[in-house]
Amino acid sequence: MEDHGISKAVVKRLPRYYRYLGDLIEAKVERISSNELSDMMNVTASQIRQDLNNFGGFGQQGYGYNVKYLYQEIGKILGLDKTYSMVIIGAGNLGQALANYVKFEKRGFVVKGIFDINPRLKGVAVRGIEIRMVDELPEFIREHKIQIATLTLPKTGAEKVAPILAENGIQAIWNFAHTDLHLPENVVVENVHLSDSLMQLSYNLNHLNQ
Amino acid sequence: MEDHGISKAVVKRLPRYYRYLGDLIEAKVERISSNELSDMMNVTASQIRQDLNNFGGFGQQGYGYNVKYLYQEIGKILGLDKTYSMVIIGAGNLGQALANYVKFEKRGFVVKGIFDINPRLKGVAVRGIEIRMVDELPEFIREHKIQIATLTLPKTGAEKVAPILAENGIQAIWNFAHTDLHLPENVVVENVHLSDSLMQLSYNLNHLNQ
Repeated sequence: MEDHGISKAVVKRLPRYYRYLGDLIEAKVERISSNELSDMMNVTASQIRQDLNNFGGFGQQGYGYNVKYLYQEIGKILGLDKTYSMVIIGAGNLGQALANYVKFEKRGFVVKGIFDINPRLKGVAVRGIEIRMVDELPEFIREHKIQIATLTLPKTGAEKVAPILAENGIQAIWNFAHTDLHLPENVVVENVHLSDSLMQLSYNLNHLNQ
Repeated sequence: MEDHGISKAVVKRLPRYYRYLGDLIEAKVERISSNELSDMMNVTASQIRQDLNNFGGFGQQGYGYNVKYLYQEIGKILGLDKTYSMVIIGAGNLGQALANYVKFEKRGFVVKGIFDINPRLKGVAVRGIEIRMVDELPEFIREHKIQIATLTLPKTGAEKVAPILAENGIQAIWNFAHTDLHLPENVVVENVHLSDSLMQLSYNLNHLNQ
């Protein structure tokens, strides 16, 4: 699969294609034209054709796209044909919500450990996984070859733990803490800043129809 | 405050400025130059000057920006000088995590009600708020003048409840369900698609250094 040189904008749109194609598979749709996809996704058909042409050979004139094939190929591009070992750091409500979200595991993101700094949570089980203390992290990461760390703890905690993660070989951080982490370039950081999202909503609510 | 015609890209960056300025206030910094902000935020100083010039008059040559004033003005633009009445629909882990996140309330987003379809949750209190059943929503929205609904329930539930919300006067939906909602144009929708975010992470993890 040749996928060098795909623009960031296209990559950003891929998960959405993947989601719609997954829905189509559930609905037992076997093939779809770019015009039909366009109606569903509220994106122009030419945008869809352009985006999917980046990967080549998925569509055929007059036939449309093979839904299952396209779903699998986009999945491969997104790296969803592999499995990843993940830890969740911060066992509060949000951390537990993510630990309990079984769909992530189906996609290949396997929660191997949950960590917190609160000694009262030590040993408490979330979906069968015992909560461990943060000081056990370095050994755990190395022993279980953890690739991804999800940070669902407050800002100061996240800033303290992030360099430790990087030093011990974590390759990617899914960061829910209300801060931008400063890490070596070989560590991927994906931020989910919920407050920023709520502020966008508030802005749009106040500027609708202006 | 004249803020018509601000580009979407600038608006998207405002919450991040707001966050950094809030941190500076906490650190008792009273003024800051665009160069200093640039170093902190990893954005060029000229980008910062351009962005903030959209609102006019915040910076002075040789003096820099007044942190508190800029923070307040950006807050106003984002609509954070008002309060909003919100309901959370879906009282699972994620819904409860958001209900317990007191910082949203400090920013003016007040959770007035939590709803679910599971009768076993009826009357259970989350941060002092009793969980109600979804069939009570229309009356509750009208009675309490609810403006924002946060959807933390599965896809099919979200698709069913969204039109009911729109019909009863909800102005904005903060959607965590794994679907794009199709609603009248006078309803603002802000999506947080966690799976999409995890797929971006996975893509970047697989394409780093290529």
